[in-house]
Amino acid sequence: MNQVKKPDEFEIISRFFAPLAENAPGAFGLTDDGAVLSPEKGADIVVTTDKLVAGVHFPIDESPDLIASRLLAVNLSDLAAMGAKPWAYTLSIALPENWDIQWLDSFVGGLAGAQEAFSISLVGGDTVATPGPLTVCLTALGHIQKGQELRRSGAEQGDDIYVSGTIGDAALGLKVQKGEIPGLSEKHSTALLARFHQPIPRVQLGGRLWGLAHGVIDISDGLVADLSHICRASKCDATIDIAQVPFSEPARAAFDLDGALKETAITGGDDYELLFTAPPSSAEDIGDLSKELRLALTLIGGIGEMAGDAGSVKVVGESGKELTLIRDGYRHF
Amino acid sequence: MNQVKKPDEFEIISRFFAPLAENAPGAFGLTDDGAVLSPEKGADIVVTTDKLVAGVHFPIDESPDLIASRLLAVNLSDLAAMGAKPWAYTLSIALPENWDIQWLDSFVGGLAGAQEAFSISLVGGDTVATPGPLTVCLTALGHIQKGQELRRSGAEQGDDIYVSGTIGDAALGLKVQKGEIPGLSEKHSTALLARFHQPIPRVQLGGRLWGLAHGVIDISDGLVADLSHICRASKCDATIDIAQVPFSEPARAAFDLDGALKETAITGGDDYELLFTAPPSSAEDIGDLSKELRLALTLIGGIGEMAGDAGSVKVVGESGKELTLIRDGYRHF
Repeated sequence: MNQVKKPDEFEIISRFFAPLAENAPGAFGLTDDGAVLSPEKGADIVVTTDKLVAGVHFPIDESPDLIASRLLAVNLSDLAAMGAKPWAYTLSIALPENWDIQWLDSFVGGLAGAQEAFSISLVGGDTVATPGPLTVCLTALGHIQKGQELRRSGAEQGDDIYVSGTIGDAALGLKVQKGEIPGLSEKHSTALLARFHQPIPRVQLGGRLWGLAHGVIDISDGLVADLSHICRASKCDATIDIAQVPFSEPARAAFDLDGALKETAITGGDDYELLFTAPPSSAEDIGDLSKELRLALTLIGGIGEMAGDAGSVKVVGESGKELTLIRDGYRHF
Repeated sequence: MNQVKKPDEFEIISRFFAPLAENAPGAFGLTDDGAVLSPEKGADIVVTTDKLVAGVHFPIDESPDLIASRLLAVNLSDLAAMGAKPWAYTLSIALPENWDIQWLDSFVGGLAGAQEAFSISLVGGDTVATPGPLTVCLTALGHIQKGQELRRSGAEQGDDIYVSGTIGDAALGLKVQKGEIPGLSEKHSTALLARFHQPIPRVQLGGRLWGLAHGVIDISDGLVADLSHICRASKCDATIDIAQVPFSEPARAAFDLDGALKETAITGGDDYELLFTAPPSSAEDIGDLSKELRLALTLIGGIGEMAGDAGSVKVVGESGKELTLIRDGYRHF
């Protein structure tokens, strides 16, 4: 236990959080009632918010820098899915009674690293005490050229379906953390864990999809669940071919140990890759973009009939037969 | 206990929260990854955020509509203190395991009423489960003409110090709720309780202070504490005369029962009145504004010497002697 007198609310702000707002003059060093921001001329702003609770969204003893960078990444992924450029964020933190200075130092360090990587700055926040678990809430603001936001609802019949990167690593990483993939090599385990702990929001990709893609979403609830969000919003059906879904080498090694993990991979959440639909005429440009960004963009299926509100997702297995999935993704309740 | 199957995350959003976003087309019915907002031409935006935890900031069994309207009011008060016009807000809510539909209905009803009163709309949110107490986090956005934000740091030597409304009612209301003012009439108790439960953010006043006031803050931590924030930000000393501080009739009735409650009134938090400093030349305009808004604006003291970083607040009691206060305001740790 830490016996040193803990800093109060105002000391916490000035010592830990104000340095994160140094590059935002309108944040006034977090000493005023709010921050003032000047939007880029002619730009719209995009707003998104996410909350993480210790013991629900990450283990209670998770490393604080990972919690922080992950919280920022999750919100930046939402901005990326809208095609927006990161601009500023506010942070609310409810600290449990046993917090200590070391914890907060590490948490702030994680934010600082993620801020720098994605050119975004803290502009406001609130620090309170809670008798419950640590709860952090982040609201991110982004910029976008007026009218150029990417939406879930734009998918059209005949569109190809693409995903960035590889799918399922984060869900498998969570299983590694829980000790549920015994026998997997340390190298592969570490790689999967890192994908769970340190998601990379596809900000650059999101900023380039306007004009190429029709419907866009980030994969947070799982490949199948998020594609079904696209289907519902666009009122269409979709089919994906599991043989085309890009899996990493560590994921394939896990499947070799337990074939059922492939379902975990396509239904598990937290990848924070982008899923998008695009007309076949965009194929060449998408190939060029993939090379330029050095990021795999893989065609995994297509948009079928335009349907009613309950557009559905069909998953075709390696045998060519449709798979019946036990669960289609992560839900909070 | 509610035995009906509870709605899941997506049903909660569509059933309870999406109707609150109906007037904001860029919120897309809360079905997308973020909201798109078009700032007014030439306007800056003001951002502020606040978090409330059940059992810390309000009693666990507090009426949900009061929690909701209070959360919105607290954030709008911060916008008012910056001189900004309410625009849009996001809401994150962590629901404890025992939540029920009735609770959420009432909570949403409280938000709907406050939204309408202040012409602001929900544009995004996040709903998660928590093993801890209910935790709600709100981020509010406001508009302001470029360069016209009110700041804590503008107070100048020779300024008069004003407060809106009456002071201390909320802190006394909290004491009423805890049963700590026995003997107070029901009428006075009810009036004080209402001021604690339903703070009125001074949005109209905040929008009119540009050009009249120098330093502005909202009284959330307590009159003395918030004035000391002005002093620190403006590097000045301040003196207030307790005989000039405007107290309500119910507050005076409480003082008659227990004289020590006057200290509670000037150091307790949660009034959400505005405190501002203004040059004596603004006095007539401030009087006119008070009449126009039908809101008392009372001169309670003055800004003295410009000082170092630790500008201090002197409180002169009715006897003319300086008071020594036991505590200067509410802190979260």
